[in-house]
Amino acid sequence: MVILTPNSSYSLTLRLQIPNRAGMLAAVTQAIANSGGNLGQIDLIAQTRQLTTRDVTVDASSTEHAETIVQAVKELADVKLMSVYDRTFNLHRGGKITVNSRIPLKSQDDLAMAYTPGVGRVCTAIAQDPEQVYNLTIKQNTVAIVTDGSAVLGLGNLGAAGALPVMEGKAMLFKEFAGIDAFPICLATQDTEEIIATVKNIAPVFGGVNLEDIAAPRCFEIEKRLRQELDIPVFHDDQNGTAIVTLAALFNALKIVNKPIEQIRIVINGAGAAGVAIARLLQKAGATNILMCDSKGILSTHRTDLNQEKQEFAVSQAGTLTDAMISSDVFIGVSAPGVVTPEMVRSMAKDPIVMAMANPIPEIQPELVMNDVAIMATGRSDYPNQINNVLAFPGVFRGALDSRASTITTTMCLEAASAIASLIKPSDLHSEYIIPSVFDDRVATAVAAAVQRAAREEGIAKQ
Amino acid sequence: MVILTPNSSYSLTLRLQIPNRAGMLAAVTQAIANSGGNLGQIDLIAQTRQLTTRDVTVDASSTEHAETIVQAVKELADVKLMSVYDRTFNLHRGGKITVNSRIPLKSQDDLAMAYTPGVGRVCTAIAQDPEQVYNLTIKQNTVAIVTDGSAVLGLGNLGAAGALPVMEGKAMLFKEFAGIDAFPICLATQDTEEIIATVKNIAPVFGGVNLEDIAAPRCFEIEKRLRQELDIPVFHDDQNGTAIVTLAALFNALKIVNKPIEQIRIVINGAGAAGVAIARLLQKAGATNILMCDSKGILSTHRTDLNQEKQEFAVSQAGTLTDAMISSDVFIGVSAPGVVTPEMVRSMAKDPIVMAMANPIPEIQPELVMNDVAIMATGRSDYPNQINNVLAFPGVFRGALDSRASTITTTMCLEAASAIASLIKPSDLHSEYIIPSVFDDRVATAVAAAVQRAAREEGIAKQ
Repeated sequence: MVILTPNSSYSLTLRLQIPNRAGMLAAVTQAIANSGGNLGQIDLIAQTRQLTTRDVTVDASSTEHAETIVQAVKELADVKLMSVYDRTFNLHRGGKITVNSRIPLKSQDDLAMAYTPGVGRVCTAIAQDPEQVYNLTIKQNTVAIVTDGSAVLGLGNLGAAGALPVMEGKAMLFKEFAGIDAFPICLATQDTEEIIATVKNIAPVFGGVNLEDIAAPRCFEIEKRLRQELDIPVFHDDQNGTAIVTLAALFNALKIVNKPIEQIRIVINGAGAAGVAIARLLQKAGATNILMCDSKGILSTHRTDLNQEKQEFAVSQAGTLTDAMISSDVFIGVSAPGVVTPEMVRSMAKDPIVMAMANPIPEIQPELVMNDVAIMATGRSDYPNQINNVLAFPGVFRGALDSRASTITTTMCLEAASAIASLIKPSDLHSEYIIPSVFDDRVATAVAAAVQRAAREEGIAKQ
Repeated sequence: MVILTPNSSYSLTLRLQIPNRAGMLAAVTQAIANSGGNLGQIDLIAQTRQLTTRDVTVDASSTEHAETIVQAVKELADVKLMSVYDRTFNLHRGGKITVNSRIPLKSQDDLAMAYTPGVGRVCTAIAQDPEQVYNLTIKQNTVAIVTDGSAVLGLGNLGAAGALPVMEGKAMLFKEFAGIDAFPICLATQDTEEIIATVKNIAPVFGGVNLEDIAAPRCFEIEKRLRQELDIPVFHDDQNGTAIVTLAALFNALKIVNKPIEQIRIVINGAGAAGVAIARLLQKAGATNILMCDSKGILSTHRTDLNQEKQEFAVSQAGTLTDAMISSDVFIGVSAPGVVTPEMVRSMAKDPIVMAMANPIPEIQPELVMNDVAIMATGRSDYPNQINNVLAFPGVFRGALDSRASTITTTMCLEAASAIASLIKPSDLHSEYIIPSVFDDRVATAVAAAVQRAAREEGIAKQ
């Protein structure tokens, strides 16, 4: 079993009644520590001569682990567990986003200007000059986050409702990192044509469309068609976002090991939305030697089970992932937990770069190959070099909206990757610091500027 | 020409440079008053020994009137008009609503709970128990405001983009009056089946659907079908909302003139979405004698040009609106400016009730028949008895969401109308006070309570 470190995604708050005498709180904290729980804040809620009531916050590493901790506390003599409060669930109650008015609505005057009759003049102005919708409505700063719920995180096909918490979270990220108003659209259909038709029908309100958690290969057709048929930027984050951040990290990793991208051999495991998009962007960036694998091994021209996107990367070589990794310079995993062994890493070329981005559990735990790799990156925040899409999509949309770009181009994605990479000064570059933190507030601005510049140079900016 | 009173929907702010000497500001205000402008705030922006700069806010009654006022100020010797700032347009720049996060997102812990990996547990919980979407997401408090832009206010078919400012305004009203998060969905299609399919596809995020400004007769089919095919409440405000508030006002008006609804003769002019819905709700409330007219006169069984909804109200009597109004007790207009003459009103029965709700210009100006009617109501805020949908839809949705009602029933609409009417105490009831103000904060609560009660009694409440 893969052991994960405790983290706040499994954070509990235990309300405890503890006898008010020396050593009792210590007994509680000791029990939690012994069960591997990570103690956080301890709040005093009430105190009498006999009893204290405390809220003890503990991070666990999994649901099972959380139960173990709760059990350990329950078994303490004289300590009474009043309630267990799952902080993640509690934070989700009622949802995570809200729609607010930007202007007050307290008088007849406010109503007459923001609503009828005043609004009629604004509507007429837009109907007469459709470009005015970008000045006089929310369109200029609003993005639809569209999913069909078919590939939610690494959890699979959870459907529209099951996907909504992710889309709400995404909307939060859009606001926090780029000031963009984003709204979740979770579709009750998983039919490609219906998805395309629906997104086209709701497009007028939005300045851009962020496709999210739509399964491959359907996602490729949907993204391609919507880009052709809409005049606003369409971005599939699981493809384009992941590709941008991966390339940014790779740019910096290659500087450290001093290998040119044109000459390296790259293995990509996972030929879904992310894998295909990464491969395409790496090729645009100059990579020539890419071996893609899916669960059945190398995408080889000998295979007959490949969809169109997989065929794009088929090579003459056949074999397993293990075969592919021998003498490769870079491993990029967008696949499944634990599919890479230490032996496979040790078979790679000198100074291997391993980007094991399966979430939440990587293709290989970093601890297992610490001494065998030059650089290790994961999708996790509790290891160095977190490859997180949050580094890309807010800035990409900020730049696209601000330049009124009609689409997102490969050049924009390349420029975004370069912008992210270049935020780390050569003197700061280090095997454990190849990519900025998601809380580095230079990132979105730098990405937005790069995207805007690319849009103007390519002649697709409308302002 | 119909003369309207100045109002803030045509509100201008003029920035003026005025010589700093006695009488100059008076000259400005005199010029504005002479042109019929309504002076508002006057702010001092800067002052030197020679000059003062002031922002003068003026309400006009129309675009032409605003231009007349500006011209009058321009013609003043020594006064320099620096800029004219249209307050309504300015307030619309960048749109009127925003999507915000309900919880902070400032640390890795926040991210791990609100987004990955923590959100995964929440998604899984919903996928396993779909009812949880009402606890753990925004669905419980979120309404889609859906339009195809085909009947925007009284302005006609402005299309999706032209309708957006109204839908944003509506979202503001939902928040202000009922705390509901509403989001505009303006559709790029005006095809009935496409609209139905699109709304069904985006429904998972929403706890209710408010249809808005969709032209008749298409709106009837769309509302009916969506009510059948969705498990969340669907409400066409132009139908149901208008009908509820009209009935509320009529309930109180009839108390004043002491006529039972069963015995009165009612003329409804306008057989679109609002007219048909009003007629249907009045029938449910006990009205038996309704003459409906469209632009061609009475909906008569002799006519061959009636759609299905119009046929529902066809009577044997034929004739014009003028014919219909003779000896009628109530006139309800949801039609066009100025189509009713004083003579027509004088032909009505004793103590006539006239509800002239065409917006922004009523079927007849109240001033013209002040002495001929018992009670006059309009859709305008600058006359007594404003029939405004804001009195209904926020409370209806609040009640429907809070009771998890699966649909909106006629009984709910009747109860909502009674609740609005009953807020005016018998002792306060007066020919100029038959309906509460839109800013009466008891309204939404009373409507919500009535709707919840009806939902429970009808067995369609899920909580």
